[in-house]
Amino acid sequence: MSGFVSFVSSGPGDPDLLTVRALKCLQRADAVLYDDLASGPILELCGEGTEMVAVGKRAGCPSPKQEFVSALLVQHALAGQHVVRLKSGDAGIFGRLEEEIAAVTEAGVPFEVVPGVTSASAAAAAAAMPLTRRLTARRLQFVTGHDVTGALPEEMNMAALADPEAVTCLYMGRRTFSKLAERLIAAGMPPETPALMAENVSKEGQRMVSSTVAELAEALREAPSRAVVMILYGALATPVLDAAEREPTL
Amino acid sequence: MSGFVSFVSSGPGDPDLLTVRALKCLQRADAVLYDDLASGPILELCGEGTEMVAVGKRAGCPSPKQEFVSALLVQHALAGQHVVRLKSGDAGIFGRLEEEIAAVTEAGVPFEVVPGVTSASAAAAAAAMPLTRRLTARRLQFVTGHDVTGALPEEMNMAALADPEAVTCLYMGRRTFSKLAERLIAAGMPPETPALMAENVSKEGQRMVSSTVAELAEALREAPSRAVVMILYGALATPVLDAAEREPTL
Repeated sequence: MSGFVSFVSSGPGDPDLLTVRALKCLQRADAVLYDDLASGPILELCGEGTEMVAVGKRAGCPSPKQEFVSALLVQHALAGQHVVRLKSGDAGIFGRLEEEIAAVTEAGVPFEVVPGVTSASAAAAAAAMPLTRRLTARRLQFVTGHDVTGALPEEMNMAALADPEAVTCLYMGRRTFSKLAERLIAAGMPPETPALMAENVSKEGQRMVSSTVAELAEALREAPSRAVVMILYGALATPVLDAAEREPTL
Repeated sequence: MSGFVSFVSSGPGDPDLLTVRALKCLQRADAVLYDDLASGPILELCGEGTEMVAVGKRAGCPSPKQEFVSALLVQHALAGQHVVRLKSGDAGIFGRLEEEIAAVTEAGVPFEVVPGVTSASAAAAAAAMPLTRRLTARRLQFVTGHDVTGALPEEMNMAALADPEAVTCLYMGRRTFSKLAERLIAAGMPPETPALMAENVSKEGQRMVSSTVAELAEALREAPSRAVVMILYGALATPVLDAAEREPTL
């Protein structure tokens, strides 16, 4: 019996936004190690005999250390299991995938990475918007709203982030956005830059707010922490389209 | 009879990397408008009675004008069809989605956007790499290697692109990469910055090359044009892991 690890991207949360390959992996796995953020209806797709192991981290709450998660992953694989390590969004984007790849590689466990739909793509699609706008947006950039300590990173390339020709997607940035917005505006980003905030993308409670950088900063100053994506569309973009919730009818 | 348009992301090309929702859309569509780049095995998933319409653009070849594609899309929808407009990768990323959304909106046709796996995510996963590296990579940016004229854009934020703390994914950049690399190096990017080139990701002929910015620039100076993604991992990253082709075994 030789173990195997599939690092599987769950997408934003809607089971329909899993890839076909991810679905197959979940159906065939002996064990699934999942984060809180990726839980919910997706887990119901696993086979009946699958061992379900919660190892999740939730922003702002106590969570297992990365080393513990990696050790658990290796332990299951070395027991001969086909293990799915489920990661929200696209596993390769701000998913701490490298640490876990290093751990399974060191243990001699073979693995694969199954890519998925990253949250910004899902958020823009839910708002019926492209991520890259017509003519103006030549650069699309993804950043996180906190470093490993949970705070807004001290050193950020503000000139790159405030560039009016770029579209900026901010992951896990709700708690730190007010501070970041101040720094963006100080670095030259116009306060009226169109911004879209997406909460619970593709899940129950999905909410889209079409706003501006300055208004969002104000609104989030005292709001609770929750998984959100923010898309700043660049000062040169035309206003953000209607960001109504849409139900697929096809 | 009222028409409807689903802008569906095809992912990189492997049918297993379609989302479940994309697969359902293809199976239920009356007509599918597809690009060359998104063609192949995915099209075989459509229902037998589906009208298949090729509207593709291929880099470097004559192609239908965007206005023509938009008009065709509206025409099929106004005829009452449920139309899938299939777009490679994630439709919202450098997919000229906004032009087509504007056209269907103007015609009063309801629509949805189905997000997908963008090529950079698929390329990194195929190479068993994360897109964002441990600790060093705080910013992930996607740019295209050409503007609407097919040339490398004159104005690019070189400081943002040459930033050693960013990971840069270059779409459609094979023909212009040598010139871009010169500008990146002139802007301070070390020539030995780790770089991964991915050809035909997830398709027949998939090829991964793990290299450096300077070496890739040299190798591509006389190479033919083909659909590629290049990932520049930032000067501070450890060397790119083995970028062997991997077959999922789960």
